[in-house]
Amino acid sequence: MNTTELIRKKRDGGNLSTEEILYLINSYTAGKIPDYQFSAFLMAAYFSGMNTEETAALTNAMLYSGEVIDLSEIPGSKVDKHSTGGVGDKTSLILAPIVAAAGVNVPMISGRGLGHTGGTLDKLEAIPGFNTSLDLAEYKDVIAKCGAVLIGQTKEIAPADKLIYSLRDVTATVESIPLITASIMSKKLAEGIDGLVLDVKTGSGAFMKTVEDSRALAMSLINTAKAFDKKVIGIITDMNQPLGHYIGNWLEVYESIKVLKGEDIPDLNKVTFKLSGAMIYLGGKAGSIEEGVEISKKLVKSGEAFDKFVEMVGLQGGDVELIKFPGRYPAAIHHEKVYAAKTGFVNKIDTFEVGVAGLELGAGRRTKEDIINPKAGLKFIPKLGDYVKEGDLVCEIYTDDKNSIEGAVTRINRAIEVSQGSFGGHEIIYEVIE
Amino acid sequence: MNTTELIRKKRDGGNLSTEEILYLINSYTAGKIPDYQFSAFLMAAYFSGMNTEETAALTNAMLYSGEVIDLSEIPGSKVDKHSTGGVGDKTSLILAPIVAAAGVNVPMISGRGLGHTGGTLDKLEAIPGFNTSLDLAEYKDVIAKCGAVLIGQTKEIAPADKLIYSLRDVTATVESIPLITASIMSKKLAEGIDGLVLDVKTGSGAFMKTVEDSRALAMSLINTAKAFDKKVIGIITDMNQPLGHYIGNWLEVYESIKVLKGEDIPDLNKVTFKLSGAMIYLGGKAGSIEEGVEISKKLVKSGEAFDKFVEMVGLQGGDVELIKFPGRYPAAIHHEKVYAAKTGFVNKIDTFEVGVAGLELGAGRRTKEDIINPKAGLKFIPKLGDYVKEGDLVCEIYTDDKNSIEGAVTRINRAIEVSQGSFGGHEIIYEVIE
Repeated sequence: MNTTELIRKKRDGGNLSTEEILYLINSYTAGKIPDYQFSAFLMAAYFSGMNTEETAALTNAMLYSGEVIDLSEIPGSKVDKHSTGGVGDKTSLILAPIVAAAGVNVPMISGRGLGHTGGTLDKLEAIPGFNTSLDLAEYKDVIAKCGAVLIGQTKEIAPADKLIYSLRDVTATVESIPLITASIMSKKLAEGIDGLVLDVKTGSGAFMKTVEDSRALAMSLINTAKAFDKKVIGIITDMNQPLGHYIGNWLEVYESIKVLKGEDIPDLNKVTFKLSGAMIYLGGKAGSIEEGVEISKKLVKSGEAFDKFVEMVGLQGGDVELIKFPGRYPAAIHHEKVYAAKTGFVNKIDTFEVGVAGLELGAGRRTKEDIINPKAGLKFIPKLGDYVKEGDLVCEIYTDDKNSIEGAVTRINRAIEVSQGSFGGHEIIYEVIE
Repeated sequence: MNTTELIRKKRDGGNLSTEEILYLINSYTAGKIPDYQFSAFLMAAYFSGMNTEETAALTNAMLYSGEVIDLSEIPGSKVDKHSTGGVGDKTSLILAPIVAAAGVNVPMISGRGLGHTGGTLDKLEAIPGFNTSLDLAEYKDVIAKCGAVLIGQTKEIAPADKLIYSLRDVTATVESIPLITASIMSKKLAEGIDGLVLDVKTGSGAFMKTVEDSRALAMSLINTAKAFDKKVIGIITDMNQPLGHYIGNWLEVYESIKVLKGEDIPDLNKVTFKLSGAMIYLGGKAGSIEEGVEISKKLVKSGEAFDKFVEMVGLQGGDVELIKFPGRYPAAIHHEKVYAAKTGFVNKIDTFEVGVAGLELGAGRRTKEDIINPKAGLKFIPKLGDYVKEGDLVCEIYTDDKNSIEGAVTRINRAIEVSQGSFGGHEIIYEVIE
């Protein structure tokens, strides 16, 4: 095959065959197609798009560039969740033990945070001793023992994705639905799952700013999962405000413990239980998502979900005493308070700004090489629709880096927009797509 | 500046500033931007386009990547012509001596043929001894002596274009009007010209298949020339049939000699005189294009144009005896005749196929490394609208490669389409844009 002709075909809006896509991915992964041709192909795909068959073929080629884990020896369903990323999104930490406690296995391979969004791996590693680098034998062992495991991507899984993502990152070809789809799905399908719940976030703190864009991404992900005969549910959830109140790695573990111990943090609990309910339903342990939601609430209330979390943390080497007594966690050096600059109803929160404030305090990474501070972050208090008065406490800041405080305070103030008329209300869950 | 952000800006339809374009071209030429980012930028520019200011800035950056020749020491106007390429297009060989004989300098830097179209350099090199590799001092010397010079691109001229073109060639980013414009104009503006006539070809043997596309390219070239304060005229000419009858390097020199000796080959003469007339007008030696056309005809009739051609060939080291006595040129080994397969009016000629037939006989190159045979080619007899009878002679083939004959005959037969109704006529010159 002629690579230039394949680029031209995609550029001119043609559909590539499965064989042509396999040729492109395999040749690129083997170093037989140079970066400069592959980046031109990626940009052509960005503009011309890829249909369902092409996206499935791309996913398949990337999936089989590496190892596909076989969990068939472990009894019961295996269901994972993937989120497109947001600010304060700690749902994985809460729902994994809930779903495992319901009798559905959760084999979860997660990523690290980059930019304004956090990563599940970084949050887990805020727990001293927690090992996210299990090998595949240990991965299987933990899931067989407790029904949930949370690790990072290994080099055996979808190596083509790693290579292609690095190229996309520097060639402005990240924001393409078929390329995003293949990147997500090639890794998720390698986990050995039967079912997948997709949390597609929408709003000022998400990659997709509108419900329409989020729906398009959800449909692409769902169609691809179905092409691989996986059970799948897509849920479009709100990211126009941070999820819960805490942002930062240990702070999010801390808030997860609160929920697992029964505290009601309305938006966080609503999203988490919807996702865990969908997972329990896909895993065959509930007759509907709503029944799954009720089971989730019961497992939290009974303490079984919290016990499962402690068990999982222990099996992965984490310090369970800190889960049981989170107050013992060392505090950040600096603790500052931010007060409201204006009086009114909170009608808009620039969630991206809040995420960047957390990043600058030490909770995130600007580049892959940055080192995060697990203690850093913030507690962001107001929710959309809240009435705040000038001088009210709106945010608490935690950091070891004194120089970062002023910028974070500015960002927090800038992120909160108030109006005099009362807020019209907003959605937490926009759509459930089965 | 951040290269990824500049790619993203162009991708999202933004306009790049002159400084941003200069940064991209200079950094790429200096090896500071890798090929994979530049090819993504090229594909983004292919899709998003570039406006007049951006195209001029791109041309400027590519122009000043190399040397810009100063011909101010040579008295009189300097006017060149550029053609977008066609089959049987030998107008440069005829008009350069005509325009020089009219007192307007023609400093012409030409290219080689690739694919189905020929190149002026290859045609000139069919003349034994003709040296197209003059250095800049010799270049100035020949133009000072006889008013016309025809050489190949030197490494000093627009090196960025050479680098970028190589990348475009393998990344399916050739067919972009702003990129084509900057490639052509950066080289032409380096010649030291005051004026430029653009021959934008349209039809089955041209890169632009429709008059609309040709007009868009012509306008882009004209706007760019004007941004550099050059006098410019764009002429859209027909390429729905080979220009003249002969295709092949020596064969085209031979046909050029025929025209310079006074033979009337209607379509070829019409296009050539229109172009030379426009050049004489731009050079200030005629009050209009039409007056320039009349001057051209007189200079041919008087023999001055032919004498100028002999002088120019002599000054560049070519064998002038063969110009005076072209019958002495060695013949190709094989000479085959092709006869019409059907009776009717010629209503369509697939000029691309005729060009490829010439290429396969040895007159052209598939890749830059191919070696051409100056004797190879064909005489294509019918013109659009001619009535041909089954068995009429339609083509004569000349080649040293016996194996290429059968394929060429097939292509020639396939290229001629006849109908029973008489042909409605067609244009030779579509538009003159000043």
